[in-house]
Amino acid sequence: MTDWMKEALRLAERAAAEDEVPVGAVVVQGDRVVGRGYNQRETRQSPIAHAEILAIDEASRNLGTWRLVGATLFVTLEPCPMCLAALQQARIDAVIYGASDPKGGAISLGYLLHEDLRTNHRFAARFEPSHDCGEILTKFFRQKRQGSTRT
Amino acid sequence: MTDWMKEALRLAERAAAEDEVPVGAVVVQGDRVVGRGYNQRETRQSPIAHAEILAIDEASRNLGTWRLVGATLFVTLEPCPMCLAALQQARIDAVIYGASDPKGGAISLGYLLHEDLRTNHRFAARFEPSHDCGEILTKFFRQKRQGSTRT
Repeated sequence: MTDWMKEALRLAERAAAEDEVPVGAVVVQGDRVVGRGYNQRETRQSPIAHAEILAIDEASRNLGTWRLVGATLFVTLEPCPMCLAALQQARIDAVIYGASDPKGGAISLGYLLHEDLRTNHRFAARFEPSHDCGEILTKFFRQKRQGSTRT
Repeated sequence: MTDWMKEALRLAERAAAEDEVPVGAVVVQGDRVVGRGYNQRETRQSPIAHAEILAIDEASRNLGTWRLVGATLFVTLEPCPMCLAALQQARIDAVIYGASDPKGGAISLGYLLHEDLRTNHRFAARFEPSHDCGEILTKFFRQKRQGSTRT
């Protein structure tokens, strides 16, 4: 696992600590992190507050531009269609994800926006499997289930 | 044109006045507007600052929940894939748009997320053609082209 994915995983851990589905993301440009985010849908009560969206938004603010040219997003879970499309809007270079999401992931569902020649920007999407990125989710939902049987 | 689409159009006019691609949107729940937005990508320098995203975000803040159940979004232009997917994340009831976007619209491009039985929420997407919704865009881009030939 790269250092960038390790940082995304630390952000996912922060989400878990706040009782949010644990997903974390960092935007990297050159050799530095320019944006960070972790899922905060419940905390912010916002349907768009996914890790990727928050990381992109922070990167844009830090860089003073909506064009994240030359940047790569590292995210612990495969992006949903909203997030993959947001990465396309941001003109990102690449997205690398550590766990696949067969039920909700854009690529798993066949929404291959990043490869669509009809759109004005294409980019790479790479799955680099990481045990830890999947395990933090498995653990979170296991605890949720155990919690709900107790009540 | 419904009153809601008229209000979305007024928001699009505000975008044009700020030299933004003129798209406006309102979220309606019951008989009141709970969220408003217009494209502010350049002003905010954010790739996610589309009219729909800003309207959804405001609606969530106003209602104190990320679930916009029973709400309808009226938007002057067909949503892009990011925005259609964001509406799905928000569990919206319906989206109604006044102009189609053959090159960038999710539905025009065949990304029919709102009908995808594999996802956990489906909703209606209706095209209700409005001359004014298309004309404001045509006028904006015509002025842009004339401006660029002058420089």
